[in-house]
Amino acid sequence: MRAGNPGVPTTGEWLNDVLDPGGRVGIDPFLFTADAAEEIKEAISKKNHELVYLNNMNLVDEIWKEARPKPPNKPVRVHDLKYAGLDVATKLSSLRSELVNAGSSAIIISMLDEIAWMLNLRGSDVPHSPVMYAYLIVEIDGAKLFIDNSKITKEVSDHLKKAGIELRPYDSILSEIESLAAQGASLWLDTSSVNAAIVNAYKAACDRYPPIHGTKQKTKTVDRSSENLNGPTAVHKTSPVSYAKAIKNESELEGMRNCHLRDAAALAEFWDWLEKEINKDVILTELEVSDKLLEFRSKQAGFLDTSFDTISASGANGAVIHYRPEPETCSVVAANKLFLLDSGAQYVDGTTDITRTVHFAKPTEREKECFTRVLQGHIALDLTVFPENTPGFVLDAFARSFLWKIGLDYRHGTGHGVGAALNVHEGPQSISYRYGNLTPLQEGMIVSNEPGYYEDHAFGIRLENLLYVKDVETPNRFGGIQYLGFEKLTFVPFQIKLVDMSLLSAAEVDWLNSYHSQVWEKVSPLLDAHASARQWLWNNTRPVLPHNI
Amino acid sequence: MRAGNPGVPTTGEWLNDVLDPGGRVGIDPFLFTADAAEEIKEAISKKNHELVYLNNMNLVDEIWKEARPKPPNKPVRVHDLKYAGLDVATKLSSLRSELVNAGSSAIIISMLDEIAWMLNLRGSDVPHSPVMYAYLIVEIDGAKLFIDNSKITKEVSDHLKKAGIELRPYDSILSEIESLAAQGASLWLDTSSVNAAIVNAYKAACDRYPPIHGTKQKTKTVDRSSENLNGPTAVHKTSPVSYAKAIKNESELEGMRNCHLRDAAALAEFWDWLEKEINKDVILTELEVSDKLLEFRSKQAGFLDTSFDTISASGANGAVIHYRPEPETCSVVAANKLFLLDSGAQYVDGTTDITRTVHFAKPTEREKECFTRVLQGHIALDLTVFPENTPGFVLDAFARSFLWKIGLDYRHGTGHGVGAALNVHEGPQSISYRYGNLTPLQEGMIVSNEPGYYEDHAFGIRLENLLYVKDVETPNRFGGIQYLGFEKLTFVPFQIKLVDMSLLSAAEVDWLNSYHSQVWEKVSPLLDAHASARQWLWNNTRPVLPHNI
Repeated sequence: MRAGNPGVPTTGEWLNDVLDPGGRVGIDPFLFTADAAEEIKEAISKKNHELVYLNNMNLVDEIWKEARPKPPNKPVRVHDLKYAGLDVATKLSSLRSELVNAGSSAIIISMLDEIAWMLNLRGSDVPHSPVMYAYLIVEIDGAKLFIDNSKITKEVSDHLKKAGIELRPYDSILSEIESLAAQGASLWLDTSSVNAAIVNAYKAACDRYPPIHGTKQKTKTVDRSSENLNGPTAVHKTSPVSYAKAIKNESELEGMRNCHLRDAAALAEFWDWLEKEINKDVILTELEVSDKLLEFRSKQAGFLDTSFDTISASGANGAVIHYRPEPETCSVVAANKLFLLDSGAQYVDGTTDITRTVHFAKPTEREKECFTRVLQGHIALDLTVFPENTPGFVLDAFARSFLWKIGLDYRHGTGHGVGAALNVHEGPQSISYRYGNLTPLQEGMIVSNEPGYYEDHAFGIRLENLLYVKDVETPNRFGGIQYLGFEKLTFVPFQIKLVDMSLLSAAEVDWLNSYHSQVWEKVSPLLDAHASARQWLWNNTRPVLPHNI
Repeated sequence: MRAGNPGVPTTGEWLNDVLDPGGRVGIDPFLFTADAAEEIKEAISKKNHELVYLNNMNLVDEIWKEARPKPPNKPVRVHDLKYAGLDVATKLSSLRSELVNAGSSAIIISMLDEIAWMLNLRGSDVPHSPVMYAYLIVEIDGAKLFIDNSKITKEVSDHLKKAGIELRPYDSILSEIESLAAQGASLWLDTSSVNAAIVNAYKAACDRYPPIHGTKQKTKTVDRSSENLNGPTAVHKTSPVSYAKAIKNESELEGMRNCHLRDAAALAEFWDWLEKEINKDVILTELEVSDKLLEFRSKQAGFLDTSFDTISASGANGAVIHYRPEPETCSVVAANKLFLLDSGAQYVDGTTDITRTVHFAKPTEREKECFTRVLQGHIALDLTVFPENTPGFVLDAFARSFLWKIGLDYRHGTGHGVGAALNVHEGPQSISYRYGNLTPLQEGMIVSNEPGYYEDHAFGIRLENLLYVKDVETPNRFGGIQYLGFEKLTFVPFQIKLVDMSLLSAAEVDWLNSYHSQVWEKVSPLLDAHASARQWLWNNTRPVLPHNI
């Protein structure tokens, strides 16, 4: 069952369905956020089930016994200040101001990308995401990193010491939480990300350590007016690191811009190679093609990893939005079908994510119309200017309106946040038809712009660039506020062959020509030693004429 | 203090501010919805104030004594079935199905436009809104209208009798509510519209009349599973009449289309007259102009009233969004300034609401640019196609995006619902930048399309048509759902002089020419006896050429 898909029951619904009433359901509380555990607990209470936290035993571990692979233990590395832009001391100082403002004395951070960002560290414990397993506790006057010591090199140890961060064993986190409660700390817990084991340990400890003065204060959500509470308390608020990480500083943006140009050079080599191979009737599978792309990318300076499993999808496979080609079953890349390629890379200075859809022969009119309308949505979102405090969902319809006109749509959001040399998907912002996310798009945030269209059993189209939000110098500033727009990070041509020029407005043709001229200007210098790819880039960035000229 | 404006305290906040703690605040519970009273009660409880319902005494009435004008008592009239489309029996039958589905045995309707709509009656108790003071209780096997008997003619009395509706005195509503509780009725109460006196009377009565069998059931919000409760209970849900009224049937739409053409003929006569007067240097105030407009409208068949106070605003007055000219202070309509005219009428077959902004001499480039961008937003919203289940706020940004591009915006929503020969403002749908209203736009709903731009101390621009939501026969139906769009009701030219053609796309020029050609085709036949106005319409509906031709 794929959770979240239409018709798929939630965990709680499924348990209520299969269990006789009055059961006891055990979970490993380290594997559920506090909010997720609470949701299950509430759902199954309707059938009188009890949720039991198995703090000391995970039944799957019992089955693994000695056969279980060891956890990853590759060394952690320092993320260079020239890419991070802010040193750890400065980041800690900002975070501590937030703690003081919220009336908290400590915060526990368990999101791995938030820890990596805070400490200017990168790891390799999770495929495609340069993070390491750890917990971080920041107090007003100190900070502790809970991590397997074998991952800590001398350089990292010095780096941490300089920022006043102590090292603790990974599995001592719960006892530290209890000790914080014993000291009467007011702990900032983002229950949407901190696991149930930690939240539960803190709650239990708070009950054991009542305040010395005044009446007993139970753990509860408190606001800023509660700074005078004198027992251990929990403040349940969204982690401030989530915002700080999302709003990129100039060094992070610079790294993102640079790695996108190298990525674009690799893609120019790749597309040049692929078109030639297909024209020579070479048989290539979707996986062979994605392996070759990895080969081109890995030659680029600072390349570390792909940023997610490449979606290399020919024809009908493109209509499966999260398609992943497998060695035994994947298709050959067919010359007479649309080919959708969604891929990205982790570089030392940044993270990329790009989708292009191409045809190697003569596309049908249907394919051209759909491609063109997806492109028009992509252009409309790219060109949008909007007032500050606008949540992403307000802009989502711009990317869909050209498809809606002919009764088409796509069943995914239009944009997600992207980390700087971090996770390829990050929050808190998004651009989606779901109205729940009220996070405004702010200057320095990065979002993808990826409308699509998917025709079941036929083809898939998606066109994705990464953008960053920037101040737009509008001639007016109605309301005395900031007006924002997007700047492109991605510079790879769109295939003109697939554009039905008769649908494009003059402004859309201008956009296309201006983009392609920038692609040539920015990427061709990186291809001086690659004549064939440079020629491909030249051929694919020539200006087009409007339909009516 | 204008409630709802930025910086204006709520009633509760103001009371907490001015009163010493621990006060007793009396309200006339007939003048507050149950929700509004509850909100005040909650707010003032923070300063230990108590909210007291003055059921039998309104202090303002005590001051009025005999000097108080009598309540309006003009006769109620039957709204002809050819305009209403559905007879009362059919409407009652649908409502009773809703009651059964919700597990209710009765509903109290207190929104005056809902009562008028349900009963195919119209009144004249409220200026500009053809409604009458009344309450309506619909039970599974009967219905009672609470109204001053002097308003009921023989025709109305027969009309009601035919539909099985009994008449009751207006002020017997509370005793009827108590009697329903005594019978153990489960009453559907929309606490967002029913007044606090009624809700309170029902709650108190429920406490006095516990169920005969089983445990005592307190008044509470119940869902559909509660049909077997056997004490009096309240179901607090949005009135189903609100939706039924908003989704117009074909007869209602026909009446709306027809009255809009007559309204357009009156406006053609008016604009022709006004332009000529101004050109002759006749001095006319904003009020004189709006009186003349009323004169033209009142000659149209079926004219009853204006649908709101006309906003006739010259120059800087146009920047005051809810400007209302007053005899002593209003301005002269200046030839060299923008003139904004927002007006509407009540006809026997429908309700109109239209805004145009014009210039009588040579507008500035600034005025033209702002006018054109407002017009582009108007056109973009008009042309939008969207999937079913789309709330209005998703479309709001289309109307703003052209202003946003140059850092401009407007501080009001883009569209409101409009009644069919009823209130010029109605819910539940809206098109607004506020995200709270999740009501989807549905086939048959009417909305205004009225983007604007207001430059303080300088000018105001607003361009408003009424539209109805209709099924669009798109070549595809992705997701197997309905795609919707808008059809225009309003047919009055936009002033081409104010359009900067260099900003318009070919598609926008097409829209303008197609609209003006429809205006001529639909409205000119009504002006056969008005040669001058017909000539004005001809002059103002000629096609324009795109900028680059």
